Amino acid sequence: MNSNSKPNRVLVVGGTHGNEFTGAYLIKKFQQFPELIRRSSFETLTLFANPRAFTQVRRYIDRDLNHCFSRLDLQNTTLSGYEDLRAKEIDQMFGPNSESPIDFIIDLHSTTTNMGLTLILDNDDSFSLQLAAYLSSINSEVKILTFGYSYPPNRNLLPLRSLGTSSICVEVGAVTQGVLSAEIFLKTEALVHAILDYLSKYNAGEIPSFKNTLTLYKYIEAVDFPRTNNGEIQAMIHPQLEFRDYQPLYPNDPMLLTLDGQTIPYKGNSIVYPTFINEAAYYEKGMAMCLTQKHQIIMND
Amino acid sequence: MNSNSKPNRVLVVGGTHGNEFTGAYLIKKFQQFPELIRRSSFETLTLFANPRAFTQVRRYIDRDLNHCFSRLDLQNTTLSGYEDLRAKEIDQMFGPNSESPIDFIIDLHSTTTNMGLTLILDNDDSFSLQLAAYLSSINSEVKILTFGYSYPPNRNLLPLRSLGTSSICVEVGAVTQGVLSAEIFLKTEALVHAILDYLSKYNAGEIPSFKNTLTLYKYIEAVDFPRTNNGEIQAMIHPQLEFRDYQPLYPNDPMLLTLDGQTIPYKGNSIVYPTFINEAAYYEKGMAMCLTQKHQIIMND
Repeated sequence: MNSNSKPNRVLVVGGTHGNEFTGAYLIKKFQQFPELIRRSSFETLTLFANPRAFTQVRRYIDRDLNHCFSRLDLQNTTLSGYEDLRAKEIDQMFGPNSESPIDFIIDLHSTTTNMGLTLILDNDDSFSLQLAAYLSSINSEVKILTFGYSYPPNRNLLPLRSLGTSSICVEVGAVTQGVLSAEIFLKTEALVHAILDYLSKYNAGEIPSFKNTLTLYKYIEAVDFPRTNNGEIQAMIHPQLEFRDYQPLYPNDPMLLTLDGQTIPYKGNSIVYPTFINEAAYYEKGMAMCLTQKHQIIMND
Repeated sequence: MNSNSKPNRVLVVGGTHGNEFTGAYLIKKFQQFPELIRRSSFETLTLFANPRAFTQVRRYIDRDLNHCFSRLDLQNTTLSGYEDLRAKEIDQMFGPNSESPIDFIIDLHSTTTNMGLTLILDNDDSFSLQLAAYLSSINSEVKILTFGYSYPPNRNLLPLRSLGTSSICVEVGAVTQGVLSAEIFLKTEALVHAILDYLSKYNAGEIPSFKNTLTLYKYIEAVDFPRTNNGEIQAMIHPQLEFRDYQPLYPNDPMLLTLDGQTIPYKGNSIVYPTFINEAAYYEKGMAMCLTQKHQIIMND
């Protein structure tokens, strides 16, 4: 978001991955009760992104919808998979050249990992950092994760929320794919309301006060499981690391456990803070976890 | 198992559901290190039941393999789905009319619910009850669940383990579909060894001593979520019930929470012990949980 502009049109997206029920059912709720997400200074729209994958309780039908939004792909008329066509539809409805271009996208996801209430920041502009600081200040459970310029590794694979001028990704867990957890549902709903409330205050020039320090977890690299030649994993997350997202991992701490009982330690030279530890959807991506560094940012407010 | 017969051939089965990685990878481990499951008084065989579903990280390809083992289906030459054909292959390898009929099947499953170390007893003969009592006595986490004659509700849908003269189902959780949890993997492996050790002792006439009382959770009925006309759920497991498998649910205790925040209480007249609470695989079966009654059995040992 340009620091001088105000959001006029906000899009809340859920069900980009059809087996992430939290966002999918929240969108259904918001579509049934639109007054819940109505705010006076901007229009709030909703998108149930991948209805066919939802019906089949799968992440996607042909390929991950959240990789289909590069301009190259959106203009490629030879791409005809379900998600490629759906991405073009969504771009026509909400993209920068549509009749309803979106200033801010709230993209709802869930994770099988113990990431709690994670917000993934796509931009490190002052608007995004202030929003993150606000949300951290009103809920100490909130963690801020950023992939910076290293994500996505292949810039051809842009996510849905890249259609917006600005965006934030809500990533909440642990919750199994294909189930609704009331606790996760209610926490995610509360976060959506907090974000919308912040945007209202921002538009009214009433930026709330918040603490001066913001903790950011910055992506360094992904770690895969050791695998056989045919891609099968040969180790698991070590029990001492499982569910310990955002907790410090020291050099030589246990990281993985092979199927026959050998511990594989973390071999880095410095403390890292793993997250996305044992995400079901990332086995096929070759990721057992993401390593991050913990940063403290002094805010100028 | 007839109380006078001794098991000569034992089959350990995993991967009947392709997205239950615990059993699937345990079978891979046992196939790589067969000495782990070798015992002197019987032959131990392994079966990786649904390799194609495993490759696709799905419960099944065409239909649940664990519903394909009625004689009617096995003899029906018009059934040509992947699992129907696979069931016939498995019957030819290990069924009662095969060259290697199986006396005892250990069937490894996992669950997204907090059922811990559950053993599902298919028979209530003295052999099965004694095995259950032994396993409960060596590990206080073990819970014994039985569906009795009411399961499966449609007797046409017989499970794979019905091929054996006797069988036990190991159902361990909570673990997400499509991931390996080291803790769950190690606990399941320990249970397999305990069962094999029991069978060794049984064959040697050395039935170990165990406590005289066995706690059994007996299936009463399944409870579904309220649903819309098109089958979508309208409520979630209430946060006060989530993850509380095998804990008492009293009349008027909160059971479900609608998407718009209304609590639906349990309306029965007596205490029940819910289990399979929020199992991902059962959404499509129309089950939010199973209600059980808690029974104490005085063993005659």
